[in-house]
Amino acid sequence: MSVSRGLVSLVGAGPGDPDLLTQKAVRRLQEADVVLRDALVSAEACALATKALVIDVGKRAGGDQTPQQEIERLMIAAAQQGLRVVRLKGGDPFVFGRGGEEALALQRAGIRFEVVPGISSSVAAPALAGIPVTHRGVSSGFVVVAGADLDALESVLFSLEPNVLTLVVLMGLGTRASLAARLIDHGWQPSTPAAIVMAAASNEMFTWRGRLAELGTARVQSAAGTIVIGKVAALPIDLMNGIPLSQETTR
Amino acid sequence: MSVSRGLVSLVGAGPGDPDLLTQKAVRRLQEADVVLRDALVSAEACALATKALVIDVGKRAGGDQTPQQEIERLMIAAAQQGLRVVRLKGGDPFVFGRGGEEALALQRAGIRFEVVPGISSSVAAPALAGIPVTHRGVSSGFVVVAGADLDALESVLFSLEPNVLTLVVLMGLGTRASLAARLIDHGWQPSTPAAIVMAAASNEMFTWRGRLAELGTARVQSAAGTIVIGKVAALPIDLMNGIPLSQETTR
Repeated sequence: MSVSRGLVSLVGAGPGDPDLLTQKAVRRLQEADVVLRDALVSAEACALATKALVIDVGKRAGGDQTPQQEIERLMIAAAQQGLRVVRLKGGDPFVFGRGGEEALALQRAGIRFEVVPGISSSVAAPALAGIPVTHRGVSSGFVVVAGADLDALESVLFSLEPNVLTLVVLMGLGTRASLAARLIDHGWQPSTPAAIVMAAASNEMFTWRGRLAELGTARVQSAAGTIVIGKVAALPIDLMNGIPLSQETTR
Repeated sequence: MSVSRGLVSLVGAGPGDPDLLTQKAVRRLQEADVVLRDALVSAEACALATKALVIDVGKRAGGDQTPQQEIERLMIAAAQQGLRVVRLKGGDPFVFGRGGEEALALQRAGIRFEVVPGISSSVAAPALAGIPVTHRGVSSGFVVVAGADLDALESVLFSLEPNVLTLVVLMGLGTRASLAARLIDHGWQPSTPAAIVMAAASNEMFTWRGRLAELGTARVQSAAGTIVIGKVAALPIDLMNGIPLSQETTR
């Protein structure tokens, strides 16, 4: 059968390891004619799109970025030509990924689209470092925010009573010193356990663990990282007791 | 090669549709000798474990449940026999799944284990209903809690300033009337948009949309559902404009 109409799939690529792509994401990539990829998406994931034109539209720190309107124009134009388009985003497309905005743009243009959820780093990066975002008797919930613009975040951070929920901060490596200072000003204990999970789901994965007061001076070896603040960051789960992510067990 | 040592994989099965299992989860299921499944895990996911003994250890509302200690004893005993064990949980194993407790029990027993993150319903159920948990200019973060025991949750709910973050409540269908009343008492506007996503990622998926004040009287057609409270629940993204989850596009 031939494809009569285009389709745009807003696909979450998960935290990095292509093994953590969903089966549906893999199939959409294999079927794709065009892939619009974000900067944080792994090359291995894009390599699954063997017959697609892959266009890099991601923002890189300090570098060029395809304007949001141009991304939306490209998606719509390709779908109107009857092509299968995958809009590939790191993590989940609806967690700080402008997925909602792109869905609305597609809808306004009358384009067929779908959402293929991906594993959000907000949960998976801590998990892969042995940190459960909830844990009975320790944390009965978690908050996820983006840390790139702390001034915009201030009203949110100040709406949280200190030391109750686990706080997960995405895209906050650059502002972590100020974040920690503001939280402590707002009543969070300086001794609150904290962690930074860098390059999660890759062979370069590295976790820093310490206290909120030390967050600003923590050594950071990666451009991207997930910050976890709360007692769960001090749970003594050691996944090195298990097997590294990249090591396949024998069959 | 033969397997010299047992391994326990704490695997997230995602929100229901086996298409939303990760590639790694599929492989672990295919390789498994023993699968310990929770109630919310789909039969289709378990069917991938073709050579495994599948043991149902899940809690069902009002029904029997294998005690947590017995689950941990089973996992440890099987791994000590050199078997490959998959502990299969709905969503992500570290989001209200006692995954952390089980990891600690395995570690104490000296068992090799790993975590395979899954797609949490907290993000995916709303997404599949067209509700992004974050949206620029509407919500700059989200909170995830479990609603089964509202008294235990009270300190958390009251720590949130009303109407700032998107509130996602898992396992809260049975307590939703009380939840809504308490939130309104605490200052949330009765007109705050709300949604209930039932049977997400299945052909029976159904979304109720309304207002916080109506949450208690919303018709519920499912035993499990994800509640979303916040302005994002009123965004006019209509995934029916797209293609249903179960309908494969032509190749």
